[in-house]
Amino acid sequence: MVKITVTLGKRSYPIAIASGLFGDPTAFVPLKTGDQAMLVTNQTLAPLYLDSLRVTLELSGVKVDQIILPDGEQYKSLVVLEQVFSALLEKSHGRDTTLIALGGGVIGDLTGFAAACYLRGVRFIQAPTTLLAQVDSSVGGKTAVNHPLGKNMIGAFYQPISVVIDLNCLQTLPMREFISGLAEVIKYGITLDFRFFVWLENNIDALLARDVTALSCCIRWCCELKADVVSTDEREENGRRALLNFGHTYGHAIEVKMGYGVWLHGEAIAVGMLMAAETARLLGCFAEADVERIRKLLSSARLPIHRPAEMTAGSYLTYMKRDKKVLVGERRLILPTAIGRAEIRSRISNDIVLTAIRACSKSS
Amino acid sequence: MVKITVTLGKRSYPIAIASGLFGDPTAFVPLKTGDQAMLVTNQTLAPLYLDSLRVTLELSGVKVDQIILPDGEQYKSLVVLEQVFSALLEKSHGRDTTLIALGGGVIGDLTGFAAACYLRGVRFIQAPTTLLAQVDSSVGGKTAVNHPLGKNMIGAFYQPISVVIDLNCLQTLPMREFISGLAEVIKYGITLDFRFFVWLENNIDALLARDVTALSCCIRWCCELKADVVSTDEREENGRRALLNFGHTYGHAIEVKMGYGVWLHGEAIAVGMLMAAETARLLGCFAEADVERIRKLLSSARLPIHRPAEMTAGSYLTYMKRDKKVLVGERRLILPTAIGRAEIRSRISNDIVLTAIRACSKSS
Repeated sequence: MVKITVTLGKRSYPIAIASGLFGDPTAFVPLKTGDQAMLVTNQTLAPLYLDSLRVTLELSGVKVDQIILPDGEQYKSLVVLEQVFSALLEKSHGRDTTLIALGGGVIGDLTGFAAACYLRGVRFIQAPTTLLAQVDSSVGGKTAVNHPLGKNMIGAFYQPISVVIDLNCLQTLPMREFISGLAEVIKYGITLDFRFFVWLENNIDALLARDVTALSCCIRWCCELKADVVSTDEREENGRRALLNFGHTYGHAIEVKMGYGVWLHGEAIAVGMLMAAETARLLGCFAEADVERIRKLLSSARLPIHRPAEMTAGSYLTYMKRDKKVLVGERRLILPTAIGRAEIRSRISNDIVLTAIRACSKSS
Repeated sequence: MVKITVTLGKRSYPIAIASGLFGDPTAFVPLKTGDQAMLVTNQTLAPLYLDSLRVTLELSGVKVDQIILPDGEQYKSLVVLEQVFSALLEKSHGRDTTLIALGGGVIGDLTGFAAACYLRGVRFIQAPTTLLAQVDSSVGGKTAVNHPLGKNMIGAFYQPISVVIDLNCLQTLPMREFISGLAEVIKYGITLDFRFFVWLENNIDALLARDVTALSCCIRWCCELKADVVSTDEREENGRRALLNFGHTYGHAIEVKMGYGVWLHGEAIAVGMLMAAETARLLGCFAEADVERIRKLLSSARLPIHRPAEMTAGSYLTYMKRDKKVLVGERRLILPTAIGRAEIRSRISNDIVLTAIRACSKSS
């Protein structure tokens, strides 16, 4: 079992990575005999993992209740959040309960936010089942639900007490979901680690074939990068954590405008990263050849590299205006300066942004 | 202007107390020219204070938007919270915005929770207009909304950046609301400060007449006590802050069962405090004469001292089981040991609790 620590003083916590962890009670320490827990999952995952995880916990003497939510980004809402609170109250869960998020980014973000707010804060464990959640959203304590007017607008910084990554989950993940997760993987290479980007270029086929050794190496690498970023900038205050929003300002516009769940998060982020790279190129701070190298890796990963035909370039601007990173009065974008390095830039004209968006059209 | 500090390291903040503060731009520092703010208030208060506060802020160059919510405890809900988020998003409020809670406990709790969650946290200022909010709920960062199954079940510990108490508000407060606030005032005397309890016995008529000198002294005293408790136990972890829940476990049962807003918070808490005092007496740790002294002060303050005839004693138990303080597996009650001193007690039998509840009947 690989163990990585997110270092945050008293709120430090472990990330455990291995195959078969959902069958290993020691992975869910500090849960112990007599503890109360609420498993939160969705209708797709429940038949796959719920029973085995319940048995594992019950073998440790943990009293387990469960909530099964509908599957999809459109259910990451305040309405569904209230259902989680109702279930917790109906089963008399107290301040000493532990929520366990068994699922992808939607379940993790929503359950984490529920844990942050229920009785003003209870413990929670991330048990991420998708590639995206394992490499990104389950680590670092960003929790949220969506608002009809914007993604992740309502939330909290609230850290889990542990992250339990069972690599077996990736074998049953639908291909489209798996590929979507690769977008966040590639993001780490572009923004933080040139060596990892090169490793991805060399191992993308092994990853697509879900080779366990390649997956284990990849997820460990991403979690180490993420843990380091979160440890140095938990609340996105000094600019370091903001780099991980690379591609997200553009990408969120696609997700929101197309309707939650129509484009998967990673698909939208892939095109968003390309738009951001184009923006940097237009500003003269990023090489044309590096844009192509990103485009090639995204393409090898079978991620989309063209923006949705249904959206005009202009329509992005409205949604980008509402992005959390933008809502400081002016638009701020994360732009690469080289592969493996990025920075925050503001005061970029609408013209440049629109040209970058148009450069990612199918016809261009 | 009286200034009290809530000492919480980097999150320390001032409480300013004086007549006419809503007309004084310096009271709202650090808001400055160019800042964006959202005033949150209700339909009852808007005609009284909204315009003058707007003018004060606009004179300082602050860009002010406003949301006017319906008035009442029943609107302290997730549904109304979502309306606040919608207004903030529609007006493109960013991470640098400041929410200003202009109102009583409902507005303060809901606005504070909105500030805690909006974009994962923005600044907020408490501008409490009721006695209850001025002496208790606006200080200390307990924010929340209600759930149909329990009061304040969904929330966060989230501190304001300042509390601005304009004593003039108390002159227009409806008498029933004013009296309701006196319950929390009396709570401080019973749980924390015998000297204050005696002062209240001697000054209750001046307070009821809304004598400005008496009010100023009273509110300052309460805020100093509250600031001290919050500074030493922000998140209710070491038992000190929990003492301020005195009367609330019983009282919340009345509020929830009768329907939010039917019994005012302070009215329910008054009877709840008497029930807690009776419980302590039945356990032999609180003198009969002191129960009578509390009953007499509550009665002089024109607060209810009899439980609602509509509720059976047994019906309290269900709601008390769901109380946040109880939801640790066993019921814990705050009980006085002398006037000016209280402690947390658990494992109190249902028989004792029921007898204490019955002792507060009109017929008994």
